[in-house]
Amino acid sequence: MQIERYIGIMTGTSLDGIDLALVSFHIDPAATVPDLLGIQHLTLPYPPAIVQSLEQLLTTPVNVQTFADLHIAYTYAVADACKQFCEQEDIDLLTITAIGFHGQTVWHNPYPHQFAGYSIRTTLQLGSGSTLANLLHRPVISDFRSADVALGGQGAPLVALFDAAYFRDAHYPVVMLNIGGIANVTILPPASLPSVYIRAFDTGPGNVLINAAAQHFFQQPYDADGQLAAQGTVHPEFLHALQQHPFFMQPPPKSTGRETFHWGWVENILRKFPDISPYDVLATLTYLTAWSIADHIQRFAPETAQQLFISGGGLHNTTLLEYLRQLLPNYHLFSTADKGIDPDAKEAACFAYLAYRTWHHLAGNLPPVTGALLPTILGTIALPPEFVKTP
Amino acid sequence: MQIERYIGIMTGTSLDGIDLALVSFHIDPAATVPDLLGIQHLTLPYPPAIVQSLEQLLTTPVNVQTFADLHIAYTYAVADACKQFCEQEDIDLLTITAIGFHGQTVWHNPYPHQFAGYSIRTTLQLGSGSTLANLLHRPVISDFRSADVALGGQGAPLVALFDAAYFRDAHYPVVMLNIGGIANVTILPPASLPSVYIRAFDTGPGNVLINAAAQHFFQQPYDADGQLAAQGTVHPEFLHALQQHPFFMQPPPKSTGRETFHWGWVENILRKFPDISPYDVLATLTYLTAWSIADHIQRFAPETAQQLFISGGGLHNTTLLEYLRQLLPNYHLFSTADKGIDPDAKEAACFAYLAYRTWHHLAGNLPPVTGALLPTILGTIALPPEFVKTP
Repeated sequence: MQIERYIGIMTGTSLDGIDLALVSFHIDPAATVPDLLGIQHLTLPYPPAIVQSLEQLLTTPVNVQTFADLHIAYTYAVADACKQFCEQEDIDLLTITAIGFHGQTVWHNPYPHQFAGYSIRTTLQLGSGSTLANLLHRPVISDFRSADVALGGQGAPLVALFDAAYFRDAHYPVVMLNIGGIANVTILPPASLPSVYIRAFDTGPGNVLINAAAQHFFQQPYDADGQLAAQGTVHPEFLHALQQHPFFMQPPPKSTGRETFHWGWVENILRKFPDISPYDVLATLTYLTAWSIADHIQRFAPETAQQLFISGGGLHNTTLLEYLRQLLPNYHLFSTADKGIDPDAKEAACFAYLAYRTWHHLAGNLPPVTGALLPTILGTIALPPEFVKTP
Repeated sequence: MQIERYIGIMTGTSLDGIDLALVSFHIDPAATVPDLLGIQHLTLPYPPAIVQSLEQLLTTPVNVQTFADLHIAYTYAVADACKQFCEQEDIDLLTITAIGFHGQTVWHNPYPHQFAGYSIRTTLQLGSGSTLANLLHRPVISDFRSADVALGGQGAPLVALFDAAYFRDAHYPVVMLNIGGIANVTILPPASLPSVYIRAFDTGPGNVLINAAAQHFFQQPYDADGQLAAQGTVHPEFLHALQQHPFFMQPPPKSTGRETFHWGWVENILRKFPDISPYDVLATLTYLTAWSIADHIQRFAPETAQQLFISGGGLHNTTLLEYLRQLLPNYHLFSTADKGIDPDAKEAACFAYLAYRTWHHLAGNLPPVTGALLPTILGTIALPPEFVKTP
């Protein structure tokens, strides 16, 4: 029985931590998908000085020196986090086949646009795979989104193949929901149907607007357990104004980010409702998030779907979950933990799985999901000194 | 007989063109170095809108959107140049094993420095290998310098292994000189000695200061054939002031760039010599360039070395060559063309060779040259859709 171990490393757009997951696979050449034997997971704090530099980069012009230094310092921070993970979890790095390093998304605009006379589609993840491979002395796969975007895809969501591998039901369609900074769903047809029927796309804000409001009004990094929203009530006119964002009605494939859903957008609409209380803002933004998720599921999932598996930080927001239950009365809501995958580990585990696929030259994107022209091998492969051959 | 073909793509810090070279190798598993069967070469114009954006990036703060879009638009420009190269030279891209894509250096500071609490060494080449691989449908190797820098090296010069492969003499030491924006030398011991005795480092300015003066005083992009310098005479006090730059006396391994040698530095010194004529400035900067090259060769090459092989744009500057002849009376000066390698194709050909080495998991750096702790596999490997396997 051949076992391979991959580490996935994810830092999301909410800049709230470095997620690491070690995933052990049983590789059976006869099977299309390796068995998932186990996951070890840890979230480590994002070093505040790096977060501060990233926030500066995302909001103000910086010189190329700062950009280059942050690109490398972020990579060092990830290398340190990976070493700490291995120490705490008693993992021998030398037993790892490869590391899937997502990097920090600092820009994502996969729609064709003009720049310097070229019609381009852009995505940019900070972090150097080659640097990480040589700091950790293990192979590193990074820059997972550029290949799909170059082929005309959204470069997102990339979780669809992982969901398809480990969450499909033999007889019923299943819906997967990840609530990170942005929320995304995967709609999985029964296992008997081919993967071209899989759909996955971003539904809009996840925690991003809720966190921003908690920070703005309450100096809290996020709305713990949904307590702040629970003390307010939904403001129908404010909600209606927010629901007019064109992203919500746009047909999939689609993806979005902090460039689109940010506090500035909320604040602009909020000006028309000067009397609304901070608690009601929180309640309304939480409801907007639940509504945009539920509305997309009802429009795009088959009516026979009844299982919804949830992962991501949003799972800890009781108010958000309560709204979701109200808006999706036909669904049973589960944590992905009910299928053996820790909801906080899922995204990092997904990039461990995508590293496995790239290492074996398997496609990592699903064209019907991302809109790319072709399936392709995601990312770039960097090899450490230990892999040097002598001629 | 197994033949493999690699394309090398180089855009230098002088932003004066996109250099492409197709190199055909005869791979003999018994030999340490493949035979070089032939080189096809073309320099295509750097699209002016990209050059303008790069100059803006190098001199003023930009927002992350501009950075990300330029990263991708530059990659599209390189993809277009590669397609045009293949069309003009009648090359079938499908016969190419891999493309070595240097990228555009926008920052290079391999010396340890502090950023956000980390002691880092930085190098950054613009351009996405994964994007290029999916635009051209061929494997792309890129980001050649990060691995060596991560291991404590200068990430430069990377030409040493190429020089060692194709220019060593059986009995005598040989000196290689490339005069690009920056000048660098490789000192090759006789072929019987091990490669740990190879030395290579930047000597200081190549064409960078001469070009800057031609642009400043004569609105010429460069001093064609050294005609402007030929009309002036060397100004001893101005020369002496320029020679005080600490880089010249710093011991190898060392590397430098436009961050260090630029028009601002010259202009600052020139203020003390208000009466000097523009022609004399050109003559003095040309002499400074020749002196810094010759001085490094005399200090670091063995006395038995008598052959100097020159490549790069500076070879077309007759005045510079005349000064070099005066300063190196014991040397015979050759163009690399005398050993079958077009002096304008050499840098791009070097990255085709480094792509060959990475593709075969051979080390691409020479630790005694760069100062890195270990030999390693340079760059990252991006694979196109054609390489997708089905499980």
